[in-house]
Amino acid sequence: MSEFDLIRRFFIDLGAARTDVALGVGDDCALLEIPAGQQLAVSIDTLSAGVHFFSDCEPAAVGHKALAVGLSDLAAMGAQPAWATLALTLPSAELEWIEGFSRGFAALATAHGVQLVGGDTTRGALSVTVQVHGFIPKGAAVRRSGAQVDDVICVSGTLGDAGLALRGLRAGTAVTTELRQRLEYPTPRVALGLELREIATAMIDLSDGLAGDLEHILAASNVGAKLALAQLPLSAQVAEVVAQTGDWALPLAAGDDYELCFCVPAARLDAAQTIAEQCGCAIHSIGHICAATGLEYRLNNGEQWKMTRRSFDHFAIECD
Amino acid sequence: MSEFDLIRRFFIDLGAARTDVALGVGDDCALLEIPAGQQLAVSIDTLSAGVHFFSDCEPAAVGHKALAVGLSDLAAMGAQPAWATLALTLPSAELEWIEGFSRGFAALATAHGVQLVGGDTTRGALSVTVQVHGFIPKGAAVRRSGAQVDDVICVSGTLGDAGLALRGLRAGTAVTTELRQRLEYPTPRVALGLELREIATAMIDLSDGLAGDLEHILAASNVGAKLALAQLPLSAQVAEVVAQTGDWALPLAAGDDYELCFCVPAARLDAAQTIAEQCGCAIHSIGHICAATGLEYRLNNGEQWKMTRRSFDHFAIECD
Repeated sequence: MSEFDLIRRFFIDLGAARTDVALGVGDDCALLEIPAGQQLAVSIDTLSAGVHFFSDCEPAAVGHKALAVGLSDLAAMGAQPAWATLALTLPSAELEWIEGFSRGFAALATAHGVQLVGGDTTRGALSVTVQVHGFIPKGAAVRRSGAQVDDVICVSGTLGDAGLALRGLRAGTAVTTELRQRLEYPTPRVALGLELREIATAMIDLSDGLAGDLEHILAASNVGAKLALAQLPLSAQVAEVVAQTGDWALPLAAGDDYELCFCVPAARLDAAQTIAEQCGCAIHSIGHICAATGLEYRLNNGEQWKMTRRSFDHFAIECD
Repeated sequence: MSEFDLIRRFFIDLGAARTDVALGVGDDCALLEIPAGQQLAVSIDTLSAGVHFFSDCEPAAVGHKALAVGLSDLAAMGAQPAWATLALTLPSAELEWIEGFSRGFAALATAHGVQLVGGDTTRGALSVTVQVHGFIPKGAAVRRSGAQVDDVICVSGTLGDAGLALRGLRAGTAVTTELRQRLEYPTPRVALGLELREIATAMIDLSDGLAGDLEHILAASNVGAKLALAQLPLSAQVAEVVAQTGDWALPLAAGDDYELCFCVPAARLDAAQTIAEQCGCAIHSIGHICAATGLEYRLNNGEQWKMTRRSFDHFAIECD
């Protein structure tokens, strides 16, 4: 089967069918139409086998996650997803793998009204690059730079589940289906991000871990933050690990959560809770923004806790 | 040096500075503005070390070519380049390599008014994925599907130079600087593609070789073509190889030409020549479109020539 046959068979206009796609897969470029008054939001991300997923990970999960990480970026700006492009590098043309991959990708794309409009398939080490494209009314995007002193810091969902699943899979110990789903099929918080656009002052999605990602908000906004560790939303399994070890690095720095971290004025916290309930996605306040730069972690007894392990960083991880 | 330091140092808003970039590198998404009445044209391509370029290729050439192949796709639709995103996968953070890569990328981006607006750096086997974004007035794009019976088929530049350079580099024989430049620093025919928009009925860029790429136009337009091999524009070196071997596969199927192949009504051939002169890029007519499907090659003596080697295909090449 040739490259062109592959593309035709699995990737022709996969996902939703959108009327704003003047020309999809199959020419030199896709031709796309952006609604009047909207800005285009784009984000590109690569997942490589052996780095971002296990080489024997089920292909549908790779397809799901490759799109999910991009949708999570759109969510973090408050953008409405529209289109995706896909650059897929494969060591060989294994039809069963490609079929599974496209199935996982298509299911998530369809659920979010996203159409695949372009792509490239090449031979090489297994790797997936996806660019997502979304719409956002001009000037309405939630950036990292808007956090204000005294804003409340919130996160969606729970933290550290994907990290715990990864730890278990690496160690070869039993991993519950629920935890494994959190690692392999993360849920991008698209509806929540869209609805929070009106009230969030700053927002980011948690890909590298709360500690490192929140630092990006603090740096961009030129502020600091104090977090109450006891307020971090944890699943029972992650809470147990933290209780046993006294180490908060798992929920703070293991990464791959794909939850949203955002800031709201204290007076809008109730509104944020109402939005979260409507979106069916729990949020929790975990601390507040302060003028003094730096990120402080406080234990329940009032003592400060120091993290030694750094936030996930692709080039720094080798030094860990 | 961390991933974030790397990005900051080399890739912050590299290339041209554009006023339609509301937010560039450094947040979850870039925010971009498309002019009223224009469609967005996008194309994504991956170059992998050992497949699309030699692992020891100079990094500036990799940076140049990674962007050039995308600009060539924009040219083939008649789109005006605007932005690029870059997903760079590196085995390690070698500053010298990254500096050279970004220099080659930036030079071509600046020359075409392109701004780098987003990216991702990950660890893994050396690979570069670039998405290009351009503008095109609604309905004005030149597609592959518009070729009409009796249209003249033209190509820009010369064919087979990159293929001959690659052959020499693989064999370890001497390769002239000029040939090597054709392989490593291809020139996307952006101005030519833009100017041809008014008269070309169908267009494609030659990445896989004329034979395979023209077949895409024929299939999309549901027509056939007859080519006069003696009319193929060849450099002296490629002409010598063809004369010695009697094999036309080098200019027809070696790929990596990044020239434009397009169709025009016979009455517009003079206009196309005038445009080509204004763009400083020679074009040659090489045959014509016919109703009977299939692609025929005719020798000067009127005999038909048959190609045995297939057009470059990433998954089929292993069977060659």
